[in-house]
Amino acid sequence: MGHEWDVHTAVEATPDGFSAELDPGWVVGGGVNGGYLLGVIGRAIGETVPAKPDPLAVSAFYVSASRPGPATVRTRVVRDGGSTATVAAELAQGEDTRITALATYGDLSRLPDDVRTTAVEPQLPPVEECFAMSTAPDTPPLMERFDMRLDPSCLGWALGQPSGRGLLQAWFRMADGRDPDPVQLLMVLDSLPPVSFDLGQMGWAPTLELTAHVRAVPAPGWLKVSHRTRNVAGGMFEEDCEVWDSAGRLVAQSRQLARLPRPA
Amino acid sequence: MGHEWDVHTAVEATPDGFSAELDPGWVVGGGVNGGYLLGVIGRAIGETVPAKPDPLAVSAFYVSASRPGPATVRTRVVRDGGSTATVAAELAQGEDTRITALATYGDLSRLPDDVRTTAVEPQLPPVEECFAMSTAPDTPPLMERFDMRLDPSCLGWALGQPSGRGLLQAWFRMADGRDPDPVQLLMVLDSLPPVSFDLGQMGWAPTLELTAHVRAVPAPGWLKVSHRTRNVAGGMFEEDCEVWDSAGRLVAQSRQLARLPRPA
Repeated sequence: MGHEWDVHTAVEATPDGFSAELDPGWVVGGGVNGGYLLGVIGRAIGETVPAKPDPLAVSAFYVSASRPGPATVRTRVVRDGGSTATVAAELAQGEDTRITALATYGDLSRLPDDVRTTAVEPQLPPVEECFAMSTAPDTPPLMERFDMRLDPSCLGWALGQPSGRGLLQAWFRMADGRDPDPVQLLMVLDSLPPVSFDLGQMGWAPTLELTAHVRAVPAPGWLKVSHRTRNVAGGMFEEDCEVWDSAGRLVAQSRQLARLPRPA
Repeated sequence: MGHEWDVHTAVEATPDGFSAELDPGWVVGGGVNGGYLLGVIGRAIGETVPAKPDPLAVSAFYVSASRPGPATVRTRVVRDGGSTATVAAELAQGEDTRITALATYGDLSRLPDDVRTTAVEPQLPPVEECFAMSTAPDTPPLMERFDMRLDPSCLGWALGQPSGRGLLQAWFRMADGRDPDPVQLLMVLDSLPPVSFDLGQMGWAPTLELTAHVRAVPAPGWLKVSHRTRNVAGGMFEEDCEVWDSAGRLVAQSRQLARLPRPA
């Protein structure tokens, strides 16, 4: 069987692209989690350019909400040369395009070893002192996929007292213990609740666009994930995410533009 | 005649898409400035969906270096519905794709007025106390397009003493005084020297991918622009840019993934 991530993101080559089955276990907020969908697309792109297995940069535009069930991913190589390949991809259900994406893939294991990070690793209390999202009432199916432990200092929103800082951070691993890999990081970057919770704006915030940079192969074990926003305006906000691995390395970064949830 | 920005970014509809003429005045580092190219693409997308005139989010993947001369931009509407339209675009010269891009356009003037920005406006000395890039020796043609005044506190690299902070900031306007608009902000986001200068890595750094978010219509007058990097690793760095308008509003944000320049 293997781990559920590998089963749920499996794609099969067809004469018309790739077929996938979107698992209902990733439903959140009336649609299917965008990070999971990016993982499915990421697998299809990886099979399109197998000599360049790792995502370096992926931009996804979410044009309609996905639902569980069959989907197709069509890929087109824009350029494949030197150490990278750029590929266009679209995920559709029936006649409806759900996501259109562009990606540059390469081989992270062949990059030089230099690291000069001035970014600071998130400071989190020990895992056992953080809040297990799976124990919250009324959590969406998505949260059953993860062992996600939110930093209690970012949990005021759950008690009706959001900090207003625009910060969420958490420990993250898959519920079944599967270790992270570069394609899975595309999903981890969009796994936490929206940072707008910390601004007192409850409700799931639809992503217009998300761009992910995967900067290194993650070490096995727990990941640390942080979400920040600095500019809420015009009914939208940017959400910056960082993923740090168990070796203390910043392995992935993303920025998304999302709509604020409408008042309930 | 009009301002040079409008002339240089003009596109003409043809049966095969749009034709453009890439002006030699935008050459930098052996290619044509990526921000200018994004402006040309932005104009073509705007003409493709005229009821949605403003870029909200644009992601561009740079697959080969452009040169001055004729170019074509082909656009395809992925989805046009509600308040936004998502469009795919490719800029090519002859058989060579230069840039492949995705964009969501809308109407910035119709967005709600809420603004809650925790981001802090760049603190810059007065314009007349900053360093005019146009007076530097051996500046590329690109810099003649701008009246760009770099913050002296970020200029150590010019004297062989980069600060190592990973920060550049400047006042910006067009040399001919044209006021900014949303499409032009796509160029402003990629107009400063690479932030890698401040890390002592001279040379122009090729962009792999750049995603821009335009958050508001800019007020007329000087802009403030900042570039930051926090994660240099694997021969690449991310560069985050902010553009603030003369009314003190954060009007555009971008992140790019770029390659470090090779040692000379």
